[in-house]
Amino acid sequence: MAKWMLSEAEGYDFLKKYDVPVPEYRIATSAEDAAKKATEVGFPVVMKIVSPQILHKSDAGGVIVGVKDEKEAKEAYEQIISSINKHKPDADIEGIIIEEMAKPGVELIIGGNTDTAFGKTITFGIGGTLVEFVKDVSLRILPLTEAEIRQMVREINSYKLISGYRGSAPKDEETLVKTIINVCRAFEENEELKEFDINPLRLYEKGACAVDTAFIFSDEQSTKKVSDKPVDVSIFEPQSIAVIGASETPGKMGYAVMHKLSTFPGKLYPVNPKRDVIMCFKTYPSLHDIADNVDMAVITVPSALVPEVMEDCGKKGVKIAVIITAGFKEMNEEGRKLEEQTVAIAKKYGTRIVGPNCLGLISPHKGYDTTYVQRSPAPGNIAFLSQSGAIVNAVVDWSLTHNVGFSSVVSVGNQSDLNFFDYLHWAESDPNTEAIIMYIEEINNGKGFLDVVSRIARTKPVVAIKSGSSERGRAAAASHTGSLAGSYEVYMEAFREAGVLSVTNLEDAFLAAEFLSHNKHYPKGKRAVIVTNAGGFAVLSNDYAERYGIEIVDLPKNVIDEMDKFLPPFWNRGNPIDLLGDADGARFAKTFSVLAKHDDLWDICMVIGFPNLVLTSERFAKQIMMLSESTEKRIVSVLIGGSEMNGGREILRENKVPPFEELETAFRVVGRTLQSKYRVKGQGLF
Amino acid sequence: MAKWMLSEAEGYDFLKKYDVPVPEYRIATSAEDAAKKATEVGFPVVMKIVSPQILHKSDAGGVIVGVKDEKEAKEAYEQIISSINKHKPDADIEGIIIEEMAKPGVELIIGGNTDTAFGKTITFGIGGTLVEFVKDVSLRILPLTEAEIRQMVREINSYKLISGYRGSAPKDEETLVKTIINVCRAFEENEELKEFDINPLRLYEKGACAVDTAFIFSDEQSTKKVSDKPVDVSIFEPQSIAVIGASETPGKMGYAVMHKLSTFPGKLYPVNPKRDVIMCFKTYPSLHDIADNVDMAVITVPSALVPEVMEDCGKKGVKIAVIITAGFKEMNEEGRKLEEQTVAIAKKYGTRIVGPNCLGLISPHKGYDTTYVQRSPAPGNIAFLSQSGAIVNAVVDWSLTHNVGFSSVVSVGNQSDLNFFDYLHWAESDPNTEAIIMYIEEINNGKGFLDVVSRIARTKPVVAIKSGSSERGRAAAASHTGSLAGSYEVYMEAFREAGVLSVTNLEDAFLAAEFLSHNKHYPKGKRAVIVTNAGGFAVLSNDYAERYGIEIVDLPKNVIDEMDKFLPPFWNRGNPIDLLGDADGARFAKTFSVLAKHDDLWDICMVIGFPNLVLTSERFAKQIMMLSESTEKRIVSVLIGGSEMNGGREILRENKVPPFEELETAFRVVGRTLQSKYRVKGQGLF
Repeated sequence: MAKWMLSEAEGYDFLKKYDVPVPEYRIATSAEDAAKKATEVGFPVVMKIVSPQILHKSDAGGVIVGVKDEKEAKEAYEQIISSINKHKPDADIEGIIIEEMAKPGVELIIGGNTDTAFGKTITFGIGGTLVEFVKDVSLRILPLTEAEIRQMVREINSYKLISGYRGSAPKDEETLVKTIINVCRAFEENEELKEFDINPLRLYEKGACAVDTAFIFSDEQSTKKVSDKPVDVSIFEPQSIAVIGASETPGKMGYAVMHKLSTFPGKLYPVNPKRDVIMCFKTYPSLHDIADNVDMAVITVPSALVPEVMEDCGKKGVKIAVIITAGFKEMNEEGRKLEEQTVAIAKKYGTRIVGPNCLGLISPHKGYDTTYVQRSPAPGNIAFLSQSGAIVNAVVDWSLTHNVGFSSVVSVGNQSDLNFFDYLHWAESDPNTEAIIMYIEEINNGKGFLDVVSRIARTKPVVAIKSGSSERGRAAAASHTGSLAGSYEVYMEAFREAGVLSVTNLEDAFLAAEFLSHNKHYPKGKRAVIVTNAGGFAVLSNDYAERYGIEIVDLPKNVIDEMDKFLPPFWNRGNPIDLLGDADGARFAKTFSVLAKHDDLWDICMVIGFPNLVLTSERFAKQIMMLSESTEKRIVSVLIGGSEMNGGREILRENKVPPFEELETAFRVVGRTLQSKYRVKGQGLF
Repeated sequence: MAKWMLSEAEGYDFLKKYDVPVPEYRIATSAEDAAKKATEVGFPVVMKIVSPQILHKSDAGGVIVGVKDEKEAKEAYEQIISSINKHKPDADIEGIIIEEMAKPGVELIIGGNTDTAFGKTITFGIGGTLVEFVKDVSLRILPLTEAEIRQMVREINSYKLISGYRGSAPKDEETLVKTIINVCRAFEENEELKEFDINPLRLYEKGACAVDTAFIFSDEQSTKKVSDKPVDVSIFEPQSIAVIGASETPGKMGYAVMHKLSTFPGKLYPVNPKRDVIMCFKTYPSLHDIADNVDMAVITVPSALVPEVMEDCGKKGVKIAVIITAGFKEMNEEGRKLEEQTVAIAKKYGTRIVGPNCLGLISPHKGYDTTYVQRSPAPGNIAFLSQSGAIVNAVVDWSLTHNVGFSSVVSVGNQSDLNFFDYLHWAESDPNTEAIIMYIEEINNGKGFLDVVSRIARTKPVVAIKSGSSERGRAAAASHTGSLAGSYEVYMEAFREAGVLSVTNLEDAFLAAEFLSHNKHYPKGKRAVIVTNAGGFAVLSNDYAERYGIEIVDLPKNVIDEMDKFLPPFWNRGNPIDLLGDADGARFAKTFSVLAKHDDLWDICMVIGFPNLVLTSERFAKQIMMLSESTEKRIVSVLIGGSEMNGGREILRENKVPPFEELETAFRVVGRTLQSKYRVKGQGLF
């Protein structure tokens, strides 16, 4: 693999080809030549060393700015050469570049990078020396439309520096947009261009100038092959399952798995040459001794034996092998070879593999569970795909005390064959699945994944927790240019483009999935009205709304007048609407009917209640249900407190208006849906 | 109340008196004069209109920069005057100020403001035109020591702009610090100076220059009187309680309160002229008909009757009157008068008032509850003080299903007499109180509050939720200069100085209080080791740690070597330490003993477990307890999952190592303690 960089002059030439404005320049190779070329460029000029060995030109005394005449140009030439000779005597000096001195302007950055999962990305933002402090950038995955580029420009926090503000005229946004379009074209047309940095791009009231650039090329093949055709999902509905390595010794994996599968309504065949019967099931010495078909094999034997077992599975016509066993590529080089060998055998026979190094699959509706979780989860409508087995254990146990059920649970393991891509297909085609939650550490085939997930997200909400946002985690992967945005930001952008809702913890994931499972799906916008009988929660709502990008709209006079007719004279006449502690069901009902009538004013109505003597939670919940039914807009209910609120919560949950129990969480989860759908920003949305 | 601003020249003169470097300047009153004065100042110069009516000088064409010689100075004078005549013909023109043109430098801001609760504050940060986009500032409450000022300077994210970075020499930090010291002195010595802005202060490699300033003075008395002497806390331990407005009609306040108080172990006297007996208690027509002393009166009669009742209370010698009734200053002007009248009567007799417009007091250990919460809370060790009655309702109900008990619950209401200050005294002296949680909307006497709370926080953890962080909430209060930091930031700073832990929601408040109630109190620093048997949670830990300002330290080779002796060969040899899914109690125990031996390397050890077959939660909890006992450092346990983990959680809770149940929450709460104690920063800490 070869890797090369462009010199400053080559960089300018490259950009010129794509109509990106760059400074006038010449290369001088002597002091005399410098004087002549500087005159051609036009004083004042900047002079910089051209040498492949010198990356930080200023530090090496290789840059002189503000050169005003021929005499200064000659002196500058000599001074730079002598500095370089002192600083780095063995540097190859190709000359000195003499550039037009670009006038000051708003300093911006356009960066490009190639993400291992999602390919080429573009970053735009505040540049210059502030770049590392301010981190005010927008990011997109190529290809991009002009409209997307315009949005990218407007999206940065400091956009006013471009659009103009008090005391400063607007800058040339059209040239900026055209420049980004051209840069994107250059990035797309040059397969080998992998990373670049234009920093700063100076933007003026008229025009722009790319003052400093870095371009890195490589002939590495970066785009990964898009995945094969979708998996045949019928393999996830086995009629018969064999457990290879079944055991009657508690504590053994083969025991735990048999224990779980003993309630499987299809046929179950323990395989163990040392036993005749395990847990009352006739036990077979080997797969071949089973007379009937075996659709699924669950494998718990030591890793060294797995290839041999896979041969048996292939010969027996097993459709899907769930390899629980660990000790493959996650362990060492030897394990990696064992894994490759196993996959090759499976491929030969057309057997598909789950894992290895996983807990396998749970399908509560089909009645099988290959995992060793302590208690199987309840049937429900969520497909949970996890790249961590421990997280499956934790989530399943948690689900049993939190009214959560699953259509499927998948511990993906090493993804040696079947991967996220395939399990998403399963979830897509499974009528029991209404929402999908994924815990993702890494995706190999980003583009293929996005294709599938974008399609699914149109009908079933997809929620993801992507780990690896930390500097510590990605430090290893960072490169020295264009790396403003690490891979995590690329995932976040990819998720937004695909309509995947990103959250940062498991509880938010389940709340978000529940919230989006409503047939109204995403809120239609970010404008909110808040209705409550609790003054304190009204005050906190303002804080949370701002933090999570939810806009609390002002109520117009006619709406306030309508409410004035039935609300107590000293109500707050504002939003949040505080109906006061003595609000009964009728007061809520009247308020809701005014809001429903004016539902063009808002996209979200958050209703917040607490345990009190005037209004039971059941009555409160029924009013909320009626509001929800009387509008197309989304209603968010928040029932704060303990068991006194359970009655109301149950009514709401049954009617698919999920009741949040904690106020900040409600705002955060709703804010996330807006962030994902409308790129809403908020201090609390990472 | 008079309010006045300084002109630019007056501002420079004011700063010069305090040795703050400002540009050389003269005032010119004619074109000829301008040429002469500009020569005295030295070309190039900046010329600006001086007129009290013109605030935005640039917009009015009142500023010309880069004036190079006498001729240009004359022209500039004429041009500015003509612009102003056109733009604002009726403006009083005092002349044109001619200033030395300060060379470019790092643009900083020093701002001053006077907070209604906490008095004078200083803001420092990145200035110039970026100030509104970047918002990179530090804030302190006066008075300040030099050390605190140095820390303020170093605390901003862009500190490298001052300390120097690649390609840029360090700036004159000493002059900067001296300048801030001088500015603070100016602010303190001039009582009537209320707000100011030095933006930008240009900082150079040597020296600095305050280029633009605004100073606002006012003769308003801003410092509030410090509160009277502490309340006599014995009034919170009544031997006898009268309920004035007691009722037998369900739904009435006087019924709910009687119902709650019916289990009071002292004497209970219902007062109601229309009844002889209420809930089996002999009922009195008036207070005077009660023969014995009455220590506490709980008042539920309509607001108009309250002054009369207060007279009765005074005459009867009631020590404390809990006025549940609403309809006072929170409602209207009439209510405000009624409240003042009531307070005046109480003062006359020395009766102290809780409320009005509140739920009153709950003292589970003393067995009284004046509120109308549906079920009384359990006795415990938390004092909960709330400025919202709804929040008291919600929290008490929530507490009953979350193993939380209280030493006292106070709904402070309008704080017409007794206020946060007094209730803090009660909590301080109450031996049952181990931690204090407050929900605060506003504090009147900030300095007095801080005095008390700083003292208390040294022995009992104090946790606060302060509402009102939103732009929407504080928009009304914002003024046009020095308002970089609204009042919320001042509260946050005040809390940090006082040792009050600030959180943003109720659940975090209770978790934080539980965490800090341990006798090891705050962690001794931010360095963490993470130990887990769950790979997925190890990965997420890196993300959360970074987000919440917790530093995951690298393990030195000798520690890794020690662990190598007993851990499986393919363990990750890093921090988080992943002990792998098959880790049993012994593996945890050995790891813990190595970590305890090397506890100089870390301040916090987070141990994360999940339900699995190899290690029961009880065994896991016992290992964690042993670790906690073997070190002075703080151990944080996170037991993720559902009921399978309850056994372990109970053991940990009993032993005061509170078990968190959700990983991000654990990191956030611990991060908050570090933010409060060590000013740790993190994207997720607002």
